Amino acid sequence: MKHLLSVEDLSPADIHSLLELTDHMVEVSSRPIPKVPALRGKNVVSLFFEDSTRTRTSFDTAAKRLSADTMNFAVASSSVNKGESLRDTIETISAMGVDAFVIRHKSSGAPQMVTRWTNASIINAGDGWHQHPTQALLDCYTIRAGLNRRDSFDGLRIAIVGDIKHSRVARSDVQAFTKMGAHVTLVAPPTLLPPSLDGWPVEVSHDLDSLLPDLDVLYLLRVQRERMDEALLPSLHEYSALYGLTAERAARLAPHALVMHPGPMNRGVEMVVDPGELPGSVILHQVTNGVAVRMAVLFTLLGSGSDLRTGDTV
Amino acid sequence: MKHLLSVEDLSPADIHSLLELTDHMVEVSSRPIPKVPALRGKNVVSLFFEDSTRTRTSFDTAAKRLSADTMNFAVASSSVNKGESLRDTIETISAMGVDAFVIRHKSSGAPQMVTRWTNASIINAGDGWHQHPTQALLDCYTIRAGLNRRDSFDGLRIAIVGDIKHSRVARSDVQAFTKMGAHVTLVAPPTLLPPSLDGWPVEVSHDLDSLLPDLDVLYLLRVQRERMDEALLPSLHEYSALYGLTAERAARLAPHALVMHPGPMNRGVEMVVDPGELPGSVILHQVTNGVAVRMAVLFTLLGSGSDLRTGDTV
Amino acid sequence: MKHLLSVEDLSPADIHSLLELTDHMVEVSSRPIPKVPALRGKNVVSLFFEDSTRTRTSFDTAAKRLSADTMNFAVASSSVNKGESLRDTIETISAMGVDAFVIRHKSSGAPQMVTRWTNASIINAGDGWHQHPTQALLDCYTIRAGLNRRDSFDGLRIAIVGDIKHSRVARSDVQAFTKMGAHVTLVAPPTLLPPSLDGWPVEVSHDLDSLLPDLDVLYLLRVQRERMDEALLPSLHEYSALYGLTAERAARLAPHALVMHPGPMNRGVEMVVDPGELPGSVILHQVTNGVAVRMAVLFTLLGSGSDLRTGDTV
Repeated sequence: MKHLLSVEDLSPADIHSLLELTDHMVEVSSRPIPKVPALRGKNVVSLFFEDSTRTRTSFDTAAKRLSADTMNFAVASSSVNKGESLRDTIETISAMGVDAFVIRHKSSGAPQMVTRWTNASIINAGDGWHQHPTQALLDCYTIRAGLNRRDSFDGLRIAIVGDIKHSRVARSDVQAFTKMGAHVTLVAPPTLLPPSLDGWPVEVSHDLDSLLPDLDVLYLLRVQRERMDEALLPSLHEYSALYGLTAERAARLAPHALVMHPGPMNRGVEMVVDPGELPGSVILHQVTNGVAVRMAVLFTLLGSGSDLRTGDTV
Repeated sequence: MKHLLSVEDLSPADIHSLLELTDHMVEVSSRPIPKVPALRGKNVVSLFFEDSTRTRTSFDTAAKRLSADTMNFAVASSSVNKGESLRDTIETISAMGVDAFVIRHKSSGAPQMVTRWTNASIINAGDGWHQHPTQALLDCYTIRAGLNRRDSFDGLRIAIVGDIKHSRVARSDVQAFTKMGAHVTLVAPPTLLPPSLDGWPVEVSHDLDSLLPDLDVLYLLRVQRERMDEALLPSLHEYSALYGLTAERAARLAPHALVMHPGPMNRGVEMVVDPGELPGSVILHQVTNGVAVRMAVLFTLLGSGSDLRTGDTV
Repeated sequence: MKHLLSVEDLSPADIHSLLELTDHMVEVSSRPIPKVPALRGKNVVSLFFEDSTRTRTSFDTAAKRLSADTMNFAVASSSVNKGESLRDTIETISAMGVDAFVIRHKSSGAPQMVTRWTNASIINAGDGWHQHPTQALLDCYTIRAGLNRRDSFDGLRIAIVGDIKHSRVARSDVQAFTKMGAHVTLVAPPTLLPPSLDGWPVEVSHDLDSLLPDLDVLYLLRVQRERMDEALLPSLHEYSALYGLTAERAARLAPHALVMHPGPMNRGVEMVVDPGELPGSVILHQVTNGVAVRMAVLFTLLGSGSDLRTGDTV
């Protein structure tokens, strides 16, 4: 495995072995000194063409726990703004000695394109509406841990609710959850569904309330306020009334059901109830597991089996 | 001691023991390799809602000398600007594994509030007009070293001159200096004094010149140009004539007296003379001591006694 | 050697010994763990008053390979914007404990001036139109390696093409290349040449085409689009027609000739052909060698002979 570009490239066995490795990384992260020397001397460069302090910080923390060197290439102040092409930027930074690029870009497919211009490993940290594979892996890990489903998600019922159309998280999660065996239902107003769902192994519903009692996982997506300006949503208030998680809806979930969200949350819109009050909320577990999953991904791409030596300390 | 929020929370004995520990940190800082492994694996995150490269760099340097990992969470590009609440931001970063947050915020009390949302230690690096406790500690350390007053400031006469009303430095210093036993006089035009000084253990004067010969410490505050726009100051020129440190005024100080300033200085306004020409100026000592004091604070909050082992090298 | 301010200060022997040391640094950079502990505990601070992510990243990478601590002082958010003088900024950061400043500034001579305000070593990373000495060293190293000229450039014919007038790269390269023994020709429209070339040990030509077959090195400079607004260039198209490297021009170069560019390139202007298709292009070698040269400079200024111990690992 050289790159991580899309969940499509991962077999169920690949996902399993990344999640197994994540178990190790969770153990490393729980130590008094949560570091191993596994990637010492490796250079991991973040290249975020869209701001996301949250995701960038998670990768940064993961790389540091493995003793890699990290560098944030601030696109805003870079030659990209002097008209340099993406290709020249990549080739130039790459020539300084880079082992992995973590890339976020507004264009679907940009990380894939970048693989042609460098020998470094490429990790897709979100490209347009297309993919966000480490989010899918951390979501799988969180469900696996939260519902104690180590081997498969067979029979699990998961609803993904919100702006499916514009969401790389939804696309990645649908692929990962169904590869693991889960049954996924998309819940959204028709304007926020993709024009065609051909090839999506999902059901669609516009009625969240009737689904609630049977769900194992309720996955809420962030609703962007921009969607209203684009007339895709009549009002946030109406969205909230039909699809927001209120205390009433939360009460209708099964006791074991998990509530998830990729963050940042819009409180009062898709998240009306305070998630701190929900026993089933694993939203902060997602964040914590995100670091461990990214450690597993970085180690898989850049490490070698004997390097891990998780008994070693820095 | 879990947090450092305010000088109010520190007893004279607390201040003494932090200053004693600072002596060790000054020694560490003077080594050829000025680092100890004391906080290896600890994660210190700066969260500055107001810019202050100076203070942030000082904390960063302090954390690195103790071998902690550091992360600057750039508020300008974070989800805070997507409408995420401060609480969600703190809970999210915290879930990635943070041992201490260093927080600067324009609202008084914000760092105190943050303690409810995380298990990490909180260090207040300046909140509104309220507190800036590490500034007070580094000022105490600088006076203690400059006047050789290891045990108390009994009998010392300190004047703090300038915009007391809007100054968290003044509030923190008054508390710290008087806890150490000093006698503090505030010198300012009436518009730059707080509406009430009830409970401030200080005297007030509008006449700097008559005080000068008796001072042990002359502490100048930065005058913000904004105060003129707010009509609190007639002109910087007039301020300078009455309260600025000119060569003439400097000549009237006692030979042993110290001149201090928290920086950045407004040359030509509160600082008319070149401080490089003043034998009593300890302004750059304040900066140097700032790093050592912050090392002492970080170690007190995050280390354990046996961890310091200042004989160890990295 | 305490500072690196200008190629003028370097004797041919100085350049030779920096290039010899660069050979070691290239070897270090090629190891599985490309790091040595040579500058452990040293603090290298970047202070860029003009943006240049490329140069800053190169210095940063170099410092990290030598195990130095690095800090980027973001000028945009610093007290410089609160009206603090450059001198106060330097003195303040310096007081926190800095071993070297890497400075880029729009004013010629700023790095020289800074040497008076700090005990730290100063590395000029570009000042106005004046100097960029590490660029000249990396260019020398790249020619030395590319043409296998270890001892001197005697007899080499180098053309530097483009906006000589506004280029610190041209000024630095002319000095370095001629100190090494090369014969340099400047090629530019008259408006992009300095008003006087008295004291420049160069020839001038306005006819690139006639020079091409005899060149050992063709060095292209970036053409700034601003020059058109200043009416120094009629059009980029016309510039390109006369001075741009097209496939036709490239075909007229000798087979051994090198093509160089300091980056970022303006494709379609000075670089019309795709440099990836040119066998003689060493543009990415320049970038790679840049890191090694900066390691050599940092070690020369901050290390001590016995510290290098390139056999040691971190």
